[in-house]
Amino acid sequence: MMVEIITIGDELLLGQTADTNAAFLGRRLAEMGLEPLWRTTVGDHPKRIGQALSLALQRADLILITGGLGPTEDDVTRSALAQALGRRLILEQRVLQRIQERLKKNGQRLHSKLESLALLPQGAKVLDNPVGTAPGLRLEKNGKSLYILPGVPQEMRAIFEQQIAVALGNTAAERVVRRRRLRTVGIGESALSERLRRISREGIRLAYLPGPCNVDLWLTARSNRAKEAQALLSRATQQIEERLEDQIYGVDNDTMERVVATLLIMKRVTIALAESCTGGLLADRLTDVPGSSAYLERGVVAYSNRAKREILKVPRRILDRHGAVSQEVAIAMAEGVRKISGTDLGLSTTGIAGPTGATAEKPIGLAFVGLAHHEGSCAQRFVFGQDRRTNKECCVMAALNLIRKHLLKL
Amino acid sequence: MMVEIITIGDELLLGQTADTNAAFLGRRLAEMGLEPLWRTTVGDHPKRIGQALSLALQRADLILITGGLGPTEDDVTRSALAQALGRRLILEQRVLQRIQERLKKNGQRLHSKLESLALLPQGAKVLDNPVGTAPGLRLEKNGKSLYILPGVPQEMRAIFEQQIAVALGNTAAERVVRRRRLRTVGIGESALSERLRRISREGIRLAYLPGPCNVDLWLTARSNRAKEAQALLSRATQQIEERLEDQIYGVDNDTMERVVATLLIMKRVTIALAESCTGGLLADRLTDVPGSSAYLERGVVAYSNRAKREILKVPRRILDRHGAVSQEVAIAMAEGVRKISGTDLGLSTTGIAGPTGATAEKPIGLAFVGLAHHEGSCAQRFVFGQDRRTNKECCVMAALNLIRKHLLKL
Repeated sequence: MMVEIITIGDELLLGQTADTNAAFLGRRLAEMGLEPLWRTTVGDHPKRIGQALSLALQRADLILITGGLGPTEDDVTRSALAQALGRRLILEQRVLQRIQERLKKNGQRLHSKLESLALLPQGAKVLDNPVGTAPGLRLEKNGKSLYILPGVPQEMRAIFEQQIAVALGNTAAERVVRRRRLRTVGIGESALSERLRRISREGIRLAYLPGPCNVDLWLTARSNRAKEAQALLSRATQQIEERLEDQIYGVDNDTMERVVATLLIMKRVTIALAESCTGGLLADRLTDVPGSSAYLERGVVAYSNRAKREILKVPRRILDRHGAVSQEVAIAMAEGVRKISGTDLGLSTTGIAGPTGATAEKPIGLAFVGLAHHEGSCAQRFVFGQDRRTNKECCVMAALNLIRKHLLKL
Repeated sequence: MMVEIITIGDELLLGQTADTNAAFLGRRLAEMGLEPLWRTTVGDHPKRIGQALSLALQRADLILITGGLGPTEDDVTRSALAQALGRRLILEQRVLQRIQERLKKNGQRLHSKLESLALLPQGAKVLDNPVGTAPGLRLEKNGKSLYILPGVPQEMRAIFEQQIAVALGNTAAERVVRRRRLRTVGIGESALSERLRRISREGIRLAYLPGPCNVDLWLTARSNRAKEAQALLSRATQQIEERLEDQIYGVDNDTMERVVATLLIMKRVTIALAESCTGGLLADRLTDVPGSSAYLERGVVAYSNRAKREILKVPRRILDRHGAVSQEVAIAMAEGVRKISGTDLGLSTTGIAGPTGATAEKPIGLAFVGLAHHEGSCAQRFVFGQDRRTNKECCVMAALNLIRKHLLKL
C-alpha cells in the first residue's frame, strides 16, 4: 500500500510554523505499518492543491490531507479538492446542525462564514470533529482512499485517533514495519559506523541521526510477518548493544534526564548541583522530570567567582592558582555543593561557553565536569568547541552521563 | 521564479524529526521575495529522490534540496541525483583534501566512508561547509538552478547564509515581499485580534502565531516596489505599536532574554536569581546571552524548603504560615538572594509546575514571581495551568517581563 501525506498552508510553506502535523501523521502511520513514501506541502492555493492531489492519486493508494478546512477566506481546501475530483460542493444539513448546536452551547450565533464549513464535496463521508467545528472528510476515488483533516493540531489528532486509526488498523498492511531508536552518547557518527560495520543487515535498515551532542541510531525491521520483524529488530539490537555497551543510554523516547532521574530514585540517591558554564541548564533538565524534588535538593548557578567562594566555599587560592575553568575548581565546586546540601552526590560544571573568554591555553568549548561522592571526587575534561548554546547542551549531556555511569558503576 | 524545496530523510517522512530545515528555507526564501510554491519530502530512497527531482525540474526554476549528504550508507542523495541527472560521480580532489585537513586538525584519520563525501556529480560546483565535512553543491540543469545542502541544521544554515543567500539575493524577484514579526507578551490571541480590529489591511497580511506563553504577530507586505512594501510595513507597525505599547517586547529575532540583557547592560544593573518552580530555566535563559556575566551575579535553585531557609534566609515561620508557593515566600526569596549577592535586583519564582503537588487552594500552574530592588519588593500572581514544561516556560517569560517593565518603568 502506497501512502502519501499532503499538508496545506502558506504558514507551513513559508516556515512560520513547523509542520508538526506531517510529523505526527508520518509517525502514527509508520507505527501501523503504513509507511508514507511521499509528503507534499503546498500553500492555500486552489490550483496547486489540485495538482498535488492528482499526483498523489497517480502514485498512492491512501492519501491523508491536512489544512485549509477552516471558515476564513484563506481556507480553500474543500473547494479545491472538489474541483480536482470533478465533484460539486453540497450543503450537508447534518453538519450545519452540529455546528449550530456547538455554537449554541457557547452562546454564539452562526454567521455566513461558518456555514461554509458544511459545504462538502459530493460523496464525502463526514468524520466528526470532537474538539472543533470543521469536520474531517473521507472520500473514495478510483478505489483509493482520501482522508481530509483540519490543520489545527489538536483537532487533526483527535479525528485521526478517534475515527481514522481504527479504520486503517484494519487495513491489512502488506509489510510489517517495526522500529527502534537506540540513543548513544560519547561517540561520534563515523566512529559509531566503524564500530557497527559487521552488524547483519538482513531485513534491517540502520540510520544514523546525529544531534549536536550525541547520535541516535534508528533500526527499522521489515518483514511479511510481525513476529519475524520483531525478531529481526531484537537480534540487531542485541548485536549493537554487545558492541557499544555503556554508550547506549536509552531506547525510543528515553531522555538522558529521565534515565538519570529513574536511577537516582531507584537507588535513593540525592544530588545537588553547582553550575558555572551551563548556567542553570543542568538544573532545568533535571527538574523537567516530574517528582524531581525526590532527588534534587538544590542547585547553585555560581556565575561569579565571588559566588563560588561564598556559597560553594571554593578556596580563593585554588581559583587564583588554576583559574575558574579548571579540574581543581570543578572538584572544589562539586565537593562544596555536596557539603552545604548534605546530599549523596555533588555535580559541577565549569567551562568557557563562548563566544568570548578564551585564552591561549583555554579554548572556547573547554569544560570540566566534577563529581563528589562519599568515596571521593573526580573531574572530566571536555572540549566541545561549538556555539554557546551547543556548548551548554553538550556539557549538560556530559554531566548527566557522568552521573549515569557512576550510578551504574560503568 | 518558481521555487521548490525538497527535503530528504526517512526520519522526516516518518516523523521522528520535525522538518525544521524546510521551515528555515521557506522563511529565508520568502524574506528574499523567493516564495517557495512546492515542498516535497521523500525518504533515503534513490528512486523516489530521482522522481522528486524530475518533478521539481518540470515545475520549478530554483530547487533547494537538503539531506542525505553524509558519509553513512543511508546517505544516498549524491548518487541518486547523479543518476537522475544522467551524470557520473567524480572524485573531487580538492574536497578530499579539505576533509583530510579538517580531520588532521582534530587528530583523526580519513577512512573509506569519509572519502565518499568527495564523490560529486559531474559539473557540480562545491559550496564550502564552514562547520562540517560534507560540502554543499550547486548544479545547473536546462537553465535551472539546484542547490544541495547537508541535512544537519547548523551546516545547512551556515552554507545557506554564507554561500547561497547572497547569490539568490541578486536574483530579481518578481514581487517584493517584506516581513516583520512583532513579539507580544501578556495578552492572548483573541484579545489581541479585538485590539487590532481596525488596522488597515491594504497590502498587508496580518497573521497571529500563538506560542505556549505568548503570541507573535507576523506582518507581510507585498508590492511591486521595495520602497512601497517597506512603507506599508512601517505604517502597519506604527499603528499596532500605538494600540499595544508595553505588550510588544521585541521585533523579528529579538528574544525576551536578549531584550532584558540589553536593558540590564545599558542601565548597568546587576541581578541575582532565586528559582523554585522554574528549576534553573530562568538562569539558563539569561545565560544564553553572550556576556551575561556582566549582569548575572548568581542564581540559586532552591528546590527544597531547607535550601530556601539556608541559602536564601527565608524565615521558617513564613514558609510554615503561607507555604512555599505564596506571595510572601516569593518576596522573601527575592529579597534574600539580593541581600546575599549584593546585586541591584533580586528575582524569584515559586509555583506548582505539576503534574502533582496541587491542593484545593493552589492549583497546578499557580506561580508567584517576586522582585526586590532598592526601593522595595513586589510579587505577581499567575495561573498558567498547563503541562510541567510549559508552566516552567511561561513562568520564566513572566519573570523576565517583570524585569523588563521594571527597567523601562512601565
